[in-house]
Amino acid sequence: MNDHTTGTTIAELARAARRAGREVARAGVERRTAALVAIAEAVERRRVEILTANRADVEAGLAAGLSAAMVDRLKLDDKRLDGVIGAIREVAALPDPVGQVVKAWTRPNGLRVERRRIPLGVIAIIYEARPNVTTDAAALCLRAGNAVILRGGKEAFRSNQALAACIGEGLERAGLPAAAARLVPTTDREAMAELLTLDEDIDLVIPRGGEALIRFVAERSRIPVIKHYKGNCHVFVERSADVEMALAICENAKVQRPGVCNAVETILVDAPIAATFLPQLAARLGAAGVELRGDERARAAAPSMHAATEEDFATEFLDLRVAVGVVDGLEAAVRHIERFGSSHTEAIVTRDEAAARRFVDDLDSSTVVVNASTRFADGGQLGLGAEIGISTTRLHAYGPMGAEELTTTKFVVTGEGHVRT
Amino acid sequence: MNDHTTGTTIAELARAARRAGREVARAGVERRTAALVAIAEAVERRRVEILTANRADVEAGLAAGLSAAMVDRLKLDDKRLDGVIGAIREVAALPDPVGQVVKAWTRPNGLRVERRRIPLGVIAIIYEARPNVTTDAAALCLRAGNAVILRGGKEAFRSNQALAACIGEGLERAGLPAAAARLVPTTDREAMAELLTLDEDIDLVIPRGGEALIRFVAERSRIPVIKHYKGNCHVFVERSADVEMALAICENAKVQRPGVCNAVETILVDAPIAATFLPQLAARLGAAGVELRGDERARAAAPSMHAATEEDFATEFLDLRVAVGVVDGLEAAVRHIERFGSSHTEAIVTRDEAAARRFVDDLDSSTVVVNASTRFADGGQLGLGAEIGISTTRLHAYGPMGAEELTTTKFVVTGEGHVRT
Repeated sequence: MNDHTTGTTIAELARAARRAGREVARAGVERRTAALVAIAEAVERRRVEILTANRADVEAGLAAGLSAAMVDRLKLDDKRLDGVIGAIREVAALPDPVGQVVKAWTRPNGLRVERRRIPLGVIAIIYEARPNVTTDAAALCLRAGNAVILRGGKEAFRSNQALAACIGEGLERAGLPAAAARLVPTTDREAMAELLTLDEDIDLVIPRGGEALIRFVAERSRIPVIKHYKGNCHVFVERSADVEMALAICENAKVQRPGVCNAVETILVDAPIAATFLPQLAARLGAAGVELRGDERARAAAPSMHAATEEDFATEFLDLRVAVGVVDGLEAAVRHIERFGSSHTEAIVTRDEAAARRFVDDLDSSTVVVNASTRFADGGQLGLGAEIGISTTRLHAYGPMGAEELTTTKFVVTGEGHVRT
Repeated sequence: MNDHTTGTTIAELARAARRAGREVARAGVERRTAALVAIAEAVERRRVEILTANRADVEAGLAAGLSAAMVDRLKLDDKRLDGVIGAIREVAALPDPVGQVVKAWTRPNGLRVERRRIPLGVIAIIYEARPNVTTDAAALCLRAGNAVILRGGKEAFRSNQALAACIGEGLERAGLPAAAARLVPTTDREAMAELLTLDEDIDLVIPRGGEALIRFVAERSRIPVIKHYKGNCHVFVERSADVEMALAICENAKVQRPGVCNAVETILVDAPIAATFLPQLAARLGAAGVELRGDERARAAAPSMHAATEEDFATEFLDLRVAVGVVDGLEAAVRHIERFGSSHTEAIVTRDEAAARRFVDDLDSSTVVVNASTRFADGGQLGLGAEIGISTTRLHAYGPMGAEELTTTKFVVTGEGHVRT
């Protein structure tokens, strides 16, 4: 796969990233911070260029008949560019995880052992229409001492190129190789498929986008993939719940930002309180513009609800719509979640500590919440700093992923001439 | 893919493992320990049955013309069965990592966050001729609360079935489902290929065996794979090294057990000491029966060495053979290791603390050793308890993997009615 402007193949780009990654890893925290600050400054300086490129993308998108939602995701303006710059600066201010000693101990024979954080190496991010992912992802990968290969969608290609130029400029100003963060110079699928075979030079692939993209990547990749899959999140209102707290949490989890993966999609109500709680829930969410789809028992308590199909309980609506079911106790709630859930985020509202403990122990979703909104399942909210996404893959990092999750550990062993007998 | 004796498909086996894994996860430390002890007892009780099955495997192997080394790996006797039983009991005595709180903190808004260890879920182990892997791997996976799917080689099929029957019996005696540790009831490649597509029900694949097996798995798996690849390990004898210590470490790293992945394969000697050190090295290793293959500069100092080809520096000999090179200082040693190494284990022998620090900082191999033998890169030696292998994949677990590395973490978030604004 050749880029005709530079003559660089995808394999060469990955090989160069491997070498550049080693330099970023060794550069030390100050130089990595300097690079991040210089990237933010380059975006600031090149505003006009970026907005011009983006306008061309938007016009091409409109001509190609992109949906209004898609065009909105694609579009940059001065305010959004402020956001892009602010996000890079925030990452520059984060603690640098590289070199951290996670654990240290001494063996009975006197051998000292430590596990020390090192960068993962080379990370490929494969994403769709949002151009801000270019800088967000690159910044976080670089913060953790990694090289990054960016493969954005074709709709945002000009915008991504303009942003990638700023990243290269920032790296070089800090004395680091631009090859440490490169945009793949083509958006065709064969180039992406080729990228996914380069397991010698790429350590991790993170696809960010719709189900079709994630499937494509997972099926073809020889490189480990961390999926950021759907969030079919649940709130279980247990019989002892404070009613006002439960209403507030359900409303917040559904309404505050319905289009995101940590919004609630199914509310389960414990049978003994169904008759009193559900009419209040229907009123509260109805007033907020939410369409409720209840199972038979839920509709018996609140007949204003639409009828839910089984499919509704398996659906990530990402919209002002929620499925509502009545369950006989905590165990039934857990079984429902195991059957329909996507291991993303589940919450319980309860005043019973034993019930809270049981819910937390029994569910193996990546985030389990007691008496708070599912919307807190977010790297920033949980204190990880920026996040690169929310992993639904159990390996390596499960749940919100920050800079620390973009590292691994090596063993450092120190002896005084120790040999094995 | 149907097993004609039980009518169970591979997909059903994996689905049953998913359900059984949840029971193992919830069973708690005591019941998991009881199951492990009961498995050891079952192996003890069924000695005759296991040895009879193994004899049939060995006879079939001899008839099929297996190499002597292969037959040796396959063979069980009373002493080796004692080893199998002892290994299970050791794992039963290990601390249980499930439920451990890795980290806990409180957010400025009062939300409490913790990261808690949970089992990875369902782990598939794909291995070759050694039947003891059946019980070793199952025990460690169960210790960490996982279900395990075992896919052994066809040479050991009868032995593996006999051992798997003991595992099932032990699980059931402790009130846990036998489906938590099942042997795939066929050894054909299509069944393995099918197994590798079941990413809904299997969380991790660990192939243990030769390069061909690992490649087959890595190329076909839709499930994350942790590779246990080759160990082209290095010892760098730096100019300030204590000569006697360096000789002892080189000898131990090569001779103590040459057929394993943490044995040294290349010794690099710092140029200023080459003329004095190399003749002593050649004498010491030569006396131990090692064939030395030196580069031009090494042979100038110790002409008794054979000539090394470039290929020799890239080879994992797994034998009484070692490549020897002369390098100009630490940086050249690091460059050599980066070029030829396999990221497994590298050691430096030095009296210079700055050189040791630099070597440790600059190399990103999974284990980096100062003044000790590479042979310590081993879960047991480093204090992890038993090990399931040594990962050369940077994701999730890099280096020796014990029970803790067979877990992941979930976020547990506790509020008092917190909602996002």
